[in-house]
Amino acid sequence: MKLYHCLLVAFLLPASAARPQNVQNLVPYVKPIIGTAKMGHTYPGATVPFGAVQLSPDTDTIPYEMNGKYNPDVYKYCAGYQYGDKTIVGFSHTHFSGTGHSDLGDFLVMPTTGKLQLNPGTASAPQTGYRSVFSHSTEVAEANYYKVRLEDHNITAEMTTTARVGYHQYTFPKSDESHIILDMMSGIYNYDDKNVYTYVRVVNDSLITGYRQTNGWARNRTVYFAMAFSKRFNSYGQRTYDKQQVYRGFWRKWNQTENFPEMAGKQLRLYFNFKTNEGEKLGVKVALSPVSQENAVANMRAETQGWNFEKVKSDGQQLWNKELNKIVVKASPGDLVNFYTAMYHAFITPTIYMDTDGSYKGLDQGAHKAEGFTNYTVFSLWDTFRALHPLFNVIQPSRNSDMIQSMLAHYEQNSMKMLPIWSHYGNENWCMSGYHSVSVIADAIMKGTYKGDAAKALEACVTTARKRDFEGLGYYIDKGYIPIDKNSNAVSTTLEYAYDDWCIARLAKKLGADAICEEFSKRAQNWKNVYDPASNFMRPRLSDGSFRKEFDVLTTNGQGFIEGNAWNFSLYVPQDPAALVATRGGKKKFSTHLDSLFTMHLPDEFFAETEDITRDGIIGNYVHGNEPAHHAAYLYNWTDEPWKTQSRVRMILKKMYAPKEDGLGGNDDCGQMSAWYIFSSLGFYPVAPGSAEYSLGSPAVTSATLNLENGKQFTVEAKDQGEANVYVKKILLNGQPFNKRSISHEDITRGGTLTFFMTNKPVK
Amino acid sequence: MKLYHCLLVAFLLPASAARPQNVQNLVPYVKPIIGTAKMGHTYPGATVPFGAVQLSPDTDTIPYEMNGKYNPDVYKYCAGYQYGDKTIVGFSHTHFSGTGHSDLGDFLVMPTTGKLQLNPGTASAPQTGYRSVFSHSTEVAEANYYKVRLEDHNITAEMTTTARVGYHQYTFPKSDESHIILDMMSGIYNYDDKNVYTYVRVVNDSLITGYRQTNGWARNRTVYFAMAFSKRFNSYGQRTYDKQQVYRGFWRKWNQTENFPEMAGKQLRLYFNFKTNEGEKLGVKVALSPVSQENAVANMRAETQGWNFEKVKSDGQQLWNKELNKIVVKASPGDLVNFYTAMYHAFITPTIYMDTDGSYKGLDQGAHKAEGFTNYTVFSLWDTFRALHPLFNVIQPSRNSDMIQSMLAHYEQNSMKMLPIWSHYGNENWCMSGYHSVSVIADAIMKGTYKGDAAKALEACVTTARKRDFEGLGYYIDKGYIPIDKNSNAVSTTLEYAYDDWCIARLAKKLGADAICEEFSKRAQNWKNVYDPASNFMRPRLSDGSFRKEFDVLTTNGQGFIEGNAWNFSLYVPQDPAALVATRGGKKKFSTHLDSLFTMHLPDEFFAETEDITRDGIIGNYVHGNEPAHHAAYLYNWTDEPWKTQSRVRMILKKMYAPKEDGLGGNDDCGQMSAWYIFSSLGFYPVAPGSAEYSLGSPAVTSATLNLENGKQFTVEAKDQGEANVYVKKILLNGQPFNKRSISHEDITRGGTLTFFMTNKPVK
Repeated sequence: MKLYHCLLVAFLLPASAARPQNVQNLVPYVKPIIGTAKMGHTYPGATVPFGAVQLSPDTDTIPYEMNGKYNPDVYKYCAGYQYGDKTIVGFSHTHFSGTGHSDLGDFLVMPTTGKLQLNPGTASAPQTGYRSVFSHSTEVAEANYYKVRLEDHNITAEMTTTARVGYHQYTFPKSDESHIILDMMSGIYNYDDKNVYTYVRVVNDSLITGYRQTNGWARNRTVYFAMAFSKRFNSYGQRTYDKQQVYRGFWRKWNQTENFPEMAGKQLRLYFNFKTNEGEKLGVKVALSPVSQENAVANMRAETQGWNFEKVKSDGQQLWNKELNKIVVKASPGDLVNFYTAMYHAFITPTIYMDTDGSYKGLDQGAHKAEGFTNYTVFSLWDTFRALHPLFNVIQPSRNSDMIQSMLAHYEQNSMKMLPIWSHYGNENWCMSGYHSVSVIADAIMKGTYKGDAAKALEACVTTARKRDFEGLGYYIDKGYIPIDKNSNAVSTTLEYAYDDWCIARLAKKLGADAICEEFSKRAQNWKNVYDPASNFMRPRLSDGSFRKEFDVLTTNGQGFIEGNAWNFSLYVPQDPAALVATRGGKKKFSTHLDSLFTMHLPDEFFAETEDITRDGIIGNYVHGNEPAHHAAYLYNWTDEPWKTQSRVRMILKKMYAPKEDGLGGNDDCGQMSAWYIFSSLGFYPVAPGSAEYSLGSPAVTSATLNLENGKQFTVEAKDQGEANVYVKKILLNGQPFNKRSISHEDITRGGTLTFFMTNKPVK
Repeated sequence: MKLYHCLLVAFLLPASAARPQNVQNLVPYVKPIIGTAKMGHTYPGATVPFGAVQLSPDTDTIPYEMNGKYNPDVYKYCAGYQYGDKTIVGFSHTHFSGTGHSDLGDFLVMPTTGKLQLNPGTASAPQTGYRSVFSHSTEVAEANYYKVRLEDHNITAEMTTTARVGYHQYTFPKSDESHIILDMMSGIYNYDDKNVYTYVRVVNDSLITGYRQTNGWARNRTVYFAMAFSKRFNSYGQRTYDKQQVYRGFWRKWNQTENFPEMAGKQLRLYFNFKTNEGEKLGVKVALSPVSQENAVANMRAETQGWNFEKVKSDGQQLWNKELNKIVVKASPGDLVNFYTAMYHAFITPTIYMDTDGSYKGLDQGAHKAEGFTNYTVFSLWDTFRALHPLFNVIQPSRNSDMIQSMLAHYEQNSMKMLPIWSHYGNENWCMSGYHSVSVIADAIMKGTYKGDAAKALEACVTTARKRDFEGLGYYIDKGYIPIDKNSNAVSTTLEYAYDDWCIARLAKKLGADAICEEFSKRAQNWKNVYDPASNFMRPRLSDGSFRKEFDVLTTNGQGFIEGNAWNFSLYVPQDPAALVATRGGKKKFSTHLDSLFTMHLPDEFFAETEDITRDGIIGNYVHGNEPAHHAAYLYNWTDEPWKTQSRVRMILKKMYAPKEDGLGGNDDCGQMSAWYIFSSLGFYPVAPGSAEYSLGSPAVTSATLNLENGKQFTVEAKDQGEANVYVKKILLNGQPFNKRSISHEDITRGGTLTFFMTNKPVK
């Protein structure tokens, strides 16, 4: 609540970010601190839209394993920062936003004063290491700006970025013992063997370069860096925590711990010594590259000149304003913060994955150049195909087209010849299920936003969807479902494949590939094969065709569903809700069933074993904190009670999003939770990406103008908007009555105005 | 002796290597098997001159450490092969020739039949693994050709190479279970943590690519490879011996042990399955690159077309003939084998270190292109500055110039700004003492063979020689010697620095850099500061200026000399033997002292603790099996008894070199032992590289014609040559009496004939 107050106060402050004319300063509404407590897994640090650098404080870097077993506490630190922590270990340059597993945290930098300490120390005894106590009262977290006071060292730390450069500015006290620590060992989700190798080269007394190579969630990841100091260091050194090898000729020749300019090993920590005057500002720029040290230096030179922190900050905030202005809304103060923070979180991921000259390291571990597109990485597709990429199709179509180009490059470089499942810095981490790239591709082609070769894209989709060795796919192709005795996520994966296959069929139809359309239209019906009429749920089926006897519709574990139970997943037929409704006994029964989902009392033990779902993200038995049922509230539109969609959506918006540090009911999942917020706040949602229709809900804004790339504007107005007025009385499109329950993509991109008339009573 | 007989027989066989006109077929005289027993540390496998690939059998791959301690048995396997072994583990693609510490052994390939076994098995129970028993009776080792029968698998293995491609040809029996094993774990001098990472990608069913990254003697070494099969494999798979990490999403999705085309980890072994008919030949080509998989593929395509093993073999043997014909000698059958095998061993190292397009990975871990020169690596300079590079200056001047360019590139890329000490695949392993690059550079510039910028080269020499933090150099600069209380090799390093400094002074003088000449001329006198008139030996001195009391002139350990004792190292003033002679009491006393060196009885315990020196390499107290006293026999030329040089040299040639597997008295050390043989057989030797003079000895050949790069010929004739006729009666140069004890470089390069008249009595 303290934070909430503080956020409201912020609106009264003068706008600090410089901006061009006609662009509103929306940066003050962005509160990166939202989601940093509990389960949001966002980070408060600095980044530009889709930036390759995410420079953010890490409040702990605990090991992924303890005594050879998974350490469940690590889950809190997917983004490196937990709001409840009292200390900051340092500032590292790469962070996932909102994931439920993690990696990254490269190149942790920490300024210190006094006696040199090279170990991080512990949260309970920060004075035993280089970490520092901090207080939220000194903390400022804006889009592309982060500031905090490091109390143990009497240093003020400020952070800003360009796309590929993290810019630190440290204001030191007077000290003969001022240090910058560079911890090459530190990382997020650190295993014993995660650091494969690190290398640092001191080029001169204010520039170093090197790399960090890790075998983590991405098993072949190397990040190169260049690090420049605004002032020459007086001396430097390292400690290595590697096992010392028997023979090392050079250790006899040199003292390599001090002022020796080449350092290599798995476990290194470096320090750089300075003398500082009271209030002296020391700048540190760290540029990243996926390809080489040389390119990291080139990226730094291309994106920054000299040591003007304020300019870099202001330039980055202008970039944010440009992106945020793609939707200009009027809403309550809290909703404005929710909305623009959701926009901010939606525009962080995927991240740019190439140097300024287009070079990047591909999935084949070779160097490539992106020709004619910006290459992106971090595709958490099981999450983001649902609403984030559809959102991009509306307000970031060019970027979305480039993202698809990136997916196709991944496909080309993939020795498996598969589109990305979870694209991860030139790696495929194969996380989660389905092959939802095809949804993103079909959606973009159906909506006319993909600029590449559609036939090639279809070929990639089909090749991917025919990989018989991929998770249960051979069974699915042969039997029409995945047997539970063959795969533990048999039911949910069958449902997801069926939806993805519908996307392929749609795409094939559009491109005139009739045989493919027929093949995949048939496969799109496979959801029916796991529907059990006896229980009225999707249910695990054995190889012999029978439904497995043991079945618990509430439990998540061992029931054939990935991160969800039968209640949530049994609604997952986005490609044909009408058929699902019919199968389940018709509109009335289905509506009642949906009511139960939202209202039933679910005892605490359910979902307890599923890390990605906590009580904060659950309403009744509806899980909003995880993705599979994100479309569920919109399914009332296929019954005779669409007003229930309207009230449920508004209820979810209110319960699951709040302008405070613990304001997200679950992992933001690379922007998917935020994209849900944005769509639903605007009054429509893409239930089935791959169709060109958005299901209508209930807008939460008073008005919103979408400034489209084609130059047109599409405005949503909500007349008589209010907290109680969650129901839609009538709708006009461009002044004409609009009686449909969905709006087409073309209706939006053509420009115009969609006017909702709100009321406090369901309109039956 | 059996082998010796077999070698002689070989001369009667028809020459198999195709060759252009005017080029003799000298390949039959090359016996790569020489030096593969005991201490030679050569390998019998295939390579082309200075080739980047050295494809050779490894007879064991034992661990470098046992229970955390150095395993002394590993020393035998510096080149992977020991003649006394009964089994072959497999064939790997990189080998040092003759070193006394090791590394490499990348990408071990082994063909097998029958039940798949992925562990190598042991020497005592080879049937427990993929290795095989073999017999020398089926073994053929020629320049660029190796053949052996793998008895356990009923397979004949043949090897040949191009510069960057190893070509295996395996003749299989009929079998439904034929395999090619690719052991990515195997290597020479393997530590537990040596494999940093390995990666393999199956591009299609007859091509794979990948890399091996190691932290060994070179701590940052990555070799990329492409491996092509002449026939499609039916299936393939891997085993990983890594610690399994807790989370790996993809292990659920895929069976990655079979037919999964992407493999990565520290410890992998792969297999490829075939069905073969009786006598079916399976070709395997493995191309290497220091830069990328893509470049490895390009190297393969540039250097080989199709599957013509015989052509690759023959082309490579032609390359050898071209190099061997640079000196055409007449000599006894045994000496012919010794001579051309020495030529062969001298022309293996340094090795080409760049792709066909000139790309290589530099010391700064960045990619570079060699512009206008061939880039080389493996500079074992403490050994090779003595005679190998001087030999190159005579018969490989262009290559030697390129080698110096390579050294200067190393210097430029070195964050230490030092010339190479031991250049090692884009790494500096800092092995041994001195900065002998300066000797190589000065020698080439003094002799007019360096084509680059001499002033820049001098600058690199001076910068290197002024690195105060380098092994004792600050003390040396300040005090004129390195105190033994500061460095354990204080005396020998002082002597080596003094010689190197003389080289710099000579170079500076030639280039008109007078101040530098003065500075380093003074430093070149520093050998005098460790000469102890009381003992008449070079002796450890303490920081306070006094000679250390404890002193044992025979012992190698703890006496201030690296790999040598005071007897051998006290002769190390190659830049001014006359002054040394004078200091030691004049010519008569010095000559008597030298006599003692060669004739004294040294009890067995001496040198026992020095791995690089065994009894086989010792004559009296003179150590020929290691380098520091290689010039010693020539020092009689600075006394009144030059005939003793003549007889000692002939005696060393006879005792230390023989045409049999254990024919080398010590490590060949990348060709230095062989270069000594070549020079001494020709009758002259470069006592002080950096001068343009060669000290005269006693030729062992009957005649030798040096075909120089400038088109001239220089011929050495030994009239009345014979085993007893080791003394020189008179010498004519171009028919004119020649009364000097040395011959100048110009006398050689101008072309002409040097005629020695031999006799069996010293000519006093």
